[in-house]
Amino acid sequence: MITSKSNATVVAAANLKDKKGRREQGKFLIEGRKLIRDAAARGVTFDRIFVTEDFSGDLPPCDVACVSESVLKCISDTKTNQGAVGVAYLPEQAVYDGEKALLLDRVQDPSNIGSLLRTACAAGYKNVFLVDCADVFSPKAIRCGMSGQFSLNFFEVSEESFLSEHGGEWIVCADMDGENVFEAACPEKHILVLGNEGQGVSENLMRAAKQKVKIPMQNNLESLNVAVSGGIIMYQLNRRQWR
Amino acid sequence: MITSKSNATVVAAANLKDKKGRREQGKFLIEGRKLIRDAAARGVTFDRIFVTEDFSGDLPPCDVACVSESVLKCISDTKTNQGAVGVAYLPEQAVYDGEKALLLDRVQDPSNIGSLLRTACAAGYKNVFLVDCADVFSPKAIRCGMSGQFSLNFFEVSEESFLSEHGGEWIVCADMDGENVFEAACPEKHILVLGNEGQGVSENLMRAAKQKVKIPMQNNLESLNVAVSGGIIMYQLNRRQWR
Repeated sequence: MITSKSNATVVAAANLKDKKGRREQGKFLIEGRKLIRDAAARGVTFDRIFVTEDFSGDLPPCDVACVSESVLKCISDTKTNQGAVGVAYLPEQAVYDGEKALLLDRVQDPSNIGSLLRTACAAGYKNVFLVDCADVFSPKAIRCGMSGQFSLNFFEVSEESFLSEHGGEWIVCADMDGENVFEAACPEKHILVLGNEGQGVSENLMRAAKQKVKIPMQNNLESLNVAVSGGIIMYQLNRRQWR
Repeated sequence: MITSKSNATVVAAANLKDKKGRREQGKFLIEGRKLIRDAAARGVTFDRIFVTEDFSGDLPPCDVACVSESVLKCISDTKTNQGAVGVAYLPEQAVYDGEKALLLDRVQDPSNIGSLLRTACAAGYKNVFLVDCADVFSPKAIRCGMSGQFSLNFFEVSEESFLSEHGGEWIVCADMDGENVFEAACPEKHILVLGNEGQGVSENLMRAAKQKVKIPMQNNLESLNVAVSGGIIMYQLNRRQWR
């Protein structure tokens, strides 16, 4: 049993709480039994899983390291790690299959990122372009994503490179001045752009949009949380699928 | 200018970060210029607003107290208070108008609470029943609610008292085994029940439901974040309104 926080594998794992550590090691953390199991079922491979002595339950095949409570606490980002924290390999760079996609434009809150990915996955999106967003593999984003991350293909791009490659496709932007999303007709193949929490979608992406959609609101409200509005729009644009 | 954190009005304001303080004093905190202005426009009345020396901008009529940065920090719950924190009066107990309503059943996360209230307000709900939820007037819920709280009527109830008074009405529960919400027909007057983050809706409320609705999901996902699923369902149940 590892009881020292200065153990090399423990230090390396704790460094995965930061983006820098994740990029350097090519790994990320998955906390809790259920999420570890879901990840394995969706093809995520683990380097190592840290568990406390009293942990019981199935684990995917990999090196299992028994650690003290205080060591696990130092690796874990939460109080709710349920006695197991996995070190998983970041996915290899995927190839865009040309199907419908989501683009997140400077979304900064890890909970919003996680919720959006979870919803994207449920709504049938497979591809996600990321322009200057918070890291989708941070412990908090993984927690809020609840397996969303494990079924999606990610493409970190600059706005410029995205527009030069995909600027001619059917880009739909969420925008307060757009048409009512409940009446809008959108082709099955589209790229839905959701913007930054405070500022919305960037001017350049907005200019490239073939369509802009808004959620009608009562009581003089101007906007909704981006994870909520993203969810409503993703489900509406694909409504033929649900009936 | 107040520079002491032990000043009586400062201590009283800082106590409003806790539910106990809010209940004892009948007041709550609203941080930031925009939210203070929106609250005033929606009829919220302020006892006092604390500002730092360099604050400039319109404020609703009330006692304005100039304080040092460190004093404001001690009242404020965030780094983003923008130099102004208001002490507002909690609303008086409202009377239920019998129109459509939302019931939140043990929703615990203040961000979820805030997002749900913001969406409820945008989707045209005016009434919210609360069964053992996190406080809707906590600083975090207020921040995420973005004025949602200021247009809604709240009713803190026990499950038992709610069911004895409203158990015969058209109760709709969000439930994984319900009918597809995109096909469901729901009367305009209904009470939509959204459940706890982990456990969903309680058995007693489920038994009282005249209708259960689910969001169809791909990729073997089982659930969405409650604020997201609540948003999708609220907008779907009222879809006649948006076309």
